[in-house]
Amino acid sequence: MPVSPNDLNQLRQQIDEIDSQLVELLAKRAKVTAQVGKYKSQVGLPIYVPEREAELIAKRRAQAEQQNVSPVLVEDLLRRIMRESYHTQNVDYLCTNPNIKKIVVIGGAGALGRIFVDMFERSGFSVQLLEKDDWPNADSILSDAGLVLVAVPIKLTESIISKLTNLPLDCILVDITSTKQKPLAAMMAAHKGPVLGLHPMFGPDVPSLVKQVVVVCHGRHPEQYEWLLQQIRIWGGILQQTSAKEHDDAMVFIQVMRHFCSFVFGSHLAGENPDLQQLISLSSPIYRLELAMVGRLFAQDPVLYADIIFDNKDSLAVLTEFSVKFNQALALIESNNKGEFIKQFFKIGSWFGDYSKQCLVNSRKLLLKADDDRSLSEDV
Amino acid sequence: MPVSPNDLNQLRQQIDEIDSQLVELLAKRAKVTAQVGKYKSQVGLPIYVPEREAELIAKRRAQAEQQNVSPVLVEDLLRRIMRESYHTQNVDYLCTNPNIKKIVVIGGAGALGRIFVDMFERSGFSVQLLEKDDWPNADSILSDAGLVLVAVPIKLTESIISKLTNLPLDCILVDITSTKQKPLAAMMAAHKGPVLGLHPMFGPDVPSLVKQVVVVCHGRHPEQYEWLLQQIRIWGGILQQTSAKEHDDAMVFIQVMRHFCSFVFGSHLAGENPDLQQLISLSSPIYRLELAMVGRLFAQDPVLYADIIFDNKDSLAVLTEFSVKFNQALALIESNNKGEFIKQFFKIGSWFGDYSKQCLVNSRKLLLKADDDRSLSEDV
Repeated sequence: MPVSPNDLNQLRQQIDEIDSQLVELLAKRAKVTAQVGKYKSQVGLPIYVPEREAELIAKRRAQAEQQNVSPVLVEDLLRRIMRESYHTQNVDYLCTNPNIKKIVVIGGAGALGRIFVDMFERSGFSVQLLEKDDWPNADSILSDAGLVLVAVPIKLTESIISKLTNLPLDCILVDITSTKQKPLAAMMAAHKGPVLGLHPMFGPDVPSLVKQVVVVCHGRHPEQYEWLLQQIRIWGGILQQTSAKEHDDAMVFIQVMRHFCSFVFGSHLAGENPDLQQLISLSSPIYRLELAMVGRLFAQDPVLYADIIFDNKDSLAVLTEFSVKFNQALALIESNNKGEFIKQFFKIGSWFGDYSKQCLVNSRKLLLKADDDRSLSEDV
Repeated sequence: MPVSPNDLNQLRQQIDEIDSQLVELLAKRAKVTAQVGKYKSQVGLPIYVPEREAELIAKRRAQAEQQNVSPVLVEDLLRRIMRESYHTQNVDYLCTNPNIKKIVVIGGAGALGRIFVDMFERSGFSVQLLEKDDWPNADSILSDAGLVLVAVPIKLTESIISKLTNLPLDCILVDITSTKQKPLAAMMAAHKGPVLGLHPMFGPDVPSLVKQVVVVCHGRHPEQYEWLLQQIRIWGGILQQTSAKEHDDAMVFIQVMRHFCSFVFGSHLAGENPDLQQLISLSSPIYRLELAMVGRLFAQDPVLYADIIFDNKDSLAVLTEFSVKFNQALALIESNNKGEFIKQFFKIGSWFGDYSKQCLVNSRKLLLKADDDRSLSEDV
């Protein structure tokens, strides 16, 4: 049947009506998940249950296929809806250790410290901050602490820890610095009781801890802080255990190299001074994302990144080796040796193994999601 | 009111019921948008209308706020739903120039060429391929072509174009190579009729041309190929006009530098040989994304990337300058000059201007979307 401009308006009204019902369904769903959240916080069940999530998605994908709807679409929508409910359904959490009288967060007014203060308070703990000006009263603040969490900038961590020699013997001493060997050694030296090194692998802007990784480096008497790990699980966090050395070695690759390369990339662009707006408008989604990964660095705190790069003792060696590799590859261009470039490309590819294919698939999915947000008009 | 384990099951059943209604709504919506698509293809309206999209979203955001649903959630869901309908609603497109007897796509069996063949056919054009083995019959294939599209690998483009000296004078000659100066000059030399250089800023894996950028470099007689640009608009493409030189200059920054740096990064990782699985599991979302941007390169065709990097005459100079910048920054670490690092950081930040803040906001949004897809279990 042919349609007319008049019909187009009617069709659009039908779409609006359907979308309106969609919003109503979401409101209804949020009310039910709020009740689920309440129940879970009462009994201490984790918000994020991978099996329930997988089962829920599988059922709807099956229904979608029957009704000629894209199962991928349905899965994407459900995952987005569940994110919302993970991040909003829990106002309070079950307290895994009501015997802890007080938690002291040193640097709890800082960006990342504040998240832990908030999570502890929402789990029923009594939390006290210890900030720069509070050190004259530190002894009385710390005297009845069941847990002390050190959440100060990386360059202050060791000197702050070295002051913590008078904690109660059963007090748990924890840090959340982004390096682990030195802070852990400093904690072991300062305190004879239970010691734990954590590295939350997320920034201060996460809406909740659900699906966020927290690296765990055991120090001393793990049985005495098992309740804390359980508490983080209830918040939705994913614990990854490693040794402090393995952690720090990995961080040189993960943090130092990427930040440093992004810095150099930005420095190079600013030096060559191309028209940034034109670069952006001429970029495909993948390049826009690459450029955004560089650009985002410079909207952040330079001191933090200087500390991460300069304070890692392996930075210089690893980055020097990177520079060697860079110049070797450059020599291939100079001698127009495409054959060797391709040979090395395959070799690197086999080092990455299946992961590279997985990256390609995942990044394609992600780029489509990035495109969803674009609102474009043309320029011809 | 307190809830019990039994109630939890009931609540989950309610959620399943709501999700089932959601799938039904999507099925209903798809039927309506299919009719919209049919109408649009009849009258040649573009599928993607930014104003209609903005209006539709604004209405539902307003409703969401009234009903205590997150407007951001509603917008994300609607954008994802609209993506689906953009990519599926149009089976056929209005033909903007029914007078064109035949379109020949040279290299139309290749990955990107195939997309254009498909789009032309779905717009009612008669399309013929000209592949490697067809050159003995090239004269007869090309003799009645109204448009010839060159879609061969970059290293063959110029030599193929140089063979196209016998096209009908009113035939439009177009290429889609990722560099523009040389192919455009070659086309102008080979053919006296209308000439157009295009660079589709997307890979062969896009589900449709909606919201995809196509760079336009005018050659000769633009009035004779205006219908082609209009056709691309109807497919949903976004046209960006630039000169061939500006385009190529930008591509050194956009393509050459990023690919080369990713190559070196991969080469460095493979050389240092850290435990890749551990790197991934210890990574925060942003680092996983950074790593994925490197890893994805090596799942692709090395010859393509060798061509892009080696065949750009400015590669060596720009990458050498990058190497200089890298070593300058390295010297800052060697001399432990944090102050200068921070000073340069601010300077680069001001070069990026507001764009860096925008990148940070957008990448945060995108990382949340990346997290939606994660299905994690812990490791402690």
